[in-house]
Amino acid sequence: MGKTMKYCYGICLLSSIVINILFSINLYLGGGGGALQRGEKKHEIVYRPSLTWSEKAAADAEAVAAFSCSGHGRAYLDSLISDGHTVCECYTCYGGIDCSEFSPGCSADADSGDPIFLEPFWMQNAEDSAIVVSGWHRMSYSYADYTSMSTMSSEVEKYIRKLHSIVGNAITEDRYLVFGIGSSQLLSAAVYALSSQNSSSPSNVVATIPYYPMYEAQTLFFNSEDFEFEGDTTSWKLNNATDKMDVIEFVTSPNNPDGELKTSVLGGKTIYDHAYFWPHFTPIPAPSDHDFMIFTLSKLTGHAGARFGWAVIKDKDVYEKVSRYITVADLGISKDTQLRVLKLLKVAVESDGKQLFKFAYDKMRERWDRLTSVFSKSTRFSIQKRDPLHCNFFNETRLPSPAYAWVKCEREEEDDCRAVLKAGKIIGRSGSTYKAKDRYVRLSLIKSQDDFDLLMLRLTELVSLENGNIESI
Amino acid sequence: MGKTMKYCYGICLLSSIVINILFSINLYLGGGGGALQRGEKKHEIVYRPSLTWSEKAAADAEAVAAFSCSGHGRAYLDSLISDGHTVCECYTCYGGIDCSEFSPGCSADADSGDPIFLEPFWMQNAEDSAIVVSGWHRMSYSYADYTSMSTMSSEVEKYIRKLHSIVGNAITEDRYLVFGIGSSQLLSAAVYALSSQNSSSPSNVVATIPYYPMYEAQTLFFNSEDFEFEGDTTSWKLNNATDKMDVIEFVTSPNNPDGELKTSVLGGKTIYDHAYFWPHFTPIPAPSDHDFMIFTLSKLTGHAGARFGWAVIKDKDVYEKVSRYITVADLGISKDTQLRVLKLLKVAVESDGKQLFKFAYDKMRERWDRLTSVFSKSTRFSIQKRDPLHCNFFNETRLPSPAYAWVKCEREEEDDCRAVLKAGKIIGRSGSTYKAKDRYVRLSLIKSQDDFDLLMLRLTELVSLENGNIESI
Repeated sequence: MGKTMKYCYGICLLSSIVINILFSINLYLGGGGGALQRGEKKHEIVYRPSLTWSEKAAADAEAVAAFSCSGHGRAYLDSLISDGHTVCECYTCYGGIDCSEFSPGCSADADSGDPIFLEPFWMQNAEDSAIVVSGWHRMSYSYADYTSMSTMSSEVEKYIRKLHSIVGNAITEDRYLVFGIGSSQLLSAAVYALSSQNSSSPSNVVATIPYYPMYEAQTLFFNSEDFEFEGDTTSWKLNNATDKMDVIEFVTSPNNPDGELKTSVLGGKTIYDHAYFWPHFTPIPAPSDHDFMIFTLSKLTGHAGARFGWAVIKDKDVYEKVSRYITVADLGISKDTQLRVLKLLKVAVESDGKQLFKFAYDKMRERWDRLTSVFSKSTRFSIQKRDPLHCNFFNETRLPSPAYAWVKCEREEEDDCRAVLKAGKIIGRSGSTYKAKDRYVRLSLIKSQDDFDLLMLRLTELVSLENGNIESI
Repeated sequence: MGKTMKYCYGICLLSSIVINILFSINLYLGGGGGALQRGEKKHEIVYRPSLTWSEKAAADAEAVAAFSCSGHGRAYLDSLISDGHTVCECYTCYGGIDCSEFSPGCSADADSGDPIFLEPFWMQNAEDSAIVVSGWHRMSYSYADYTSMSTMSSEVEKYIRKLHSIVGNAITEDRYLVFGIGSSQLLSAAVYALSSQNSSSPSNVVATIPYYPMYEAQTLFFNSEDFEFEGDTTSWKLNNATDKMDVIEFVTSPNNPDGELKTSVLGGKTIYDHAYFWPHFTPIPAPSDHDFMIFTLSKLTGHAGARFGWAVIKDKDVYEKVSRYITVADLGISKDTQLRVLKLLKVAVESDGKQLFKFAYDKMRERWDRLTSVFSKSTRFSIQKRDPLHCNFFNETRLPSPAYAWVKCEREEEDDCRAVLKAGKIIGRSGSTYKAKDRYVRLSLIKSQDDFDLLMLRLTELVSLENGNIESI
């Protein structure tokens, strides 16, 4: 890289200038040597070698990150290029080359569970959360640091255990871990592993209404001879002699869509979907200690796009079946993703998790405060009741702050609540998506600040209309 | 980094010193400013902003890359840390803290298809192939640059099409692309998409012996009601009225394990597994133009660990079923991986692909030259016959240089060839893994140079014994 000399001649140099020159020569010679530069600690000069092959990638990343997109969009390294320029990807309801143009009549989209509310945290922790992936990084199928040639990073595994220990939300001692492509893949792997293969009749898979639709979608789509989806747990229990039948129960705790902490109804083979069991969504009353627990990075750090989840498994046979599933499905998880996960987890465990979870909880609480304030003025719409619980992590009693509002249309004639909200320019997911009544709608509270602010605006407009106050906001 | 300044002699000494001081202040304060630096173009000084948040990650990556591990191992950012130090991950047969200790009696491991032979290429192209992933890079489930909220990067798609066009190995115009977790996931997705769902009898899945065992393993494991594995294509054709039955045929071309270019036996619904259809393994006689073709990054650039593959699909209904499979299985592919894939593909298409494919072909040809030289001295062992073909990409007639040697033990009594080789300290995969006879063994030729060199050593020893020359090598 840049090798430069500078030459000064003369006799009248001040000593400070001499020092300056010495610094600069050292710096400019760069290469294999090193240079005095300011490092991460302010007001302290630390020794760090000059960069060579990674510098261009770093400069490219910083150049793209410097695009402001008016604060209403984002440019990425892999954004579209038009006329040689990176294109801003505007958030919903914003447009124009620099995303500065708001569409006044635009609907608030509270449909997806995209956890963008945590994006500002990672921007604030840019230095600690960035990674450089070299062109030759882990080209192999497996990690050589394991004697078993695992496709799982042992460092990632270590940090997952450390995080659970800090948060106190799951027991991982003497438990097996398996990584999956998000929690999604592990839900399916869990059903395969727990089903009675080679038995005469398929295992029954059940979940309690309202439930996350992926459970049913996967079992239907894969159409295995080993299991079939049987719908709502309680209904199934009423109609079947449960003690004689093979059944696998999904328990989502906190529940998606309504945020309730749930426990098993049947008490048999159970898959605990703990995607939302983190201190920003719910008080953590005690560590979960079930046979099969599933977690996902998506709702922990907000990196849904990374597609990374893990299962904590008690039984060795079940663990081996889940591992086999991952291998047969796709020979393991991306090594690039695992490198990134490691870096993110290292930040997550900093200051015993207080930094990440305080940021995330404060954000969710503030959103719930605004939300409840709006709904308190309404008799037409209601949201789920929240009961305080002691949180072992924050060591105080708190209200939960779920990822989703579970909205009910109270007027008898308004039995399609999604349509009612849609007319008020709010997009949510109808109750029937979760096998509940369409009188209910799920609204996502974990999207970007722009999305949430627009949701609040539209909700306020809707509630104002209800009270006869047609305000212009 | 390396900031620059030069000039100035004599009279203008003072002003130069002033400028120098100002630049240095700017440099050490870092942040929003900038500095004159030598950029990527030699002998040209370009303006590049100083690095801020990405610098630490870049320095960390370069520090780890500087570990030599004696050339017989590798240290990665996510390698184990012991006593605060990164641990070298030694290649097979090497040990010690710095991987300098060779185990003299160690067996040559030619078992896996780990494509490490391309690692040196990426080290040579370190600057162009590195990426920086920011902590907030694409946290969303989907790409906002698509109106359809796709989970696939449109830039990656563009480069895949460009690469196929340059190489001339597949027609992608007016075809759909779907990304998967390696080709592995797409093999399974293909069977689901092509099977006759909701029909009274399951579709029959067949492949021609010797075939890649994953086809059978997946269909058995997922145990769908929609299809079942029926073994060898030709045997199945003899025993069934093919025109009346629903059948899905796997065609692996070039074939794993033996490298043969294959075509469909039945001519019906066919999945072309083109994992090895690249100019370093086979001459490219013409672009493939089949209804369903599967490719993988693993055998193209050598990044097996990234788990990235793609399908090229003609029919819209089939495309939608495959997309649905990917969504239901795990809500798409890691965005971090797609960012990396984009960078690697950009290098792959440089100089119209000549750089990557020349490197890769030269490496494979050199290995085949050494391999054939050893086997030419043997009557006990033989390898597959290779016929020259015209390669449109290199525009000359060439011998194929397959990823695997398909070794046959010629002595009648040696019907367990894997055991014979194992006794000679060579680990391969037995023919029965591919439903062929155990008189055959697959030896991988695409692993690291250390692995290949040791394989050559052990093979030479074995062949020398056969000829009565007990040489000490």
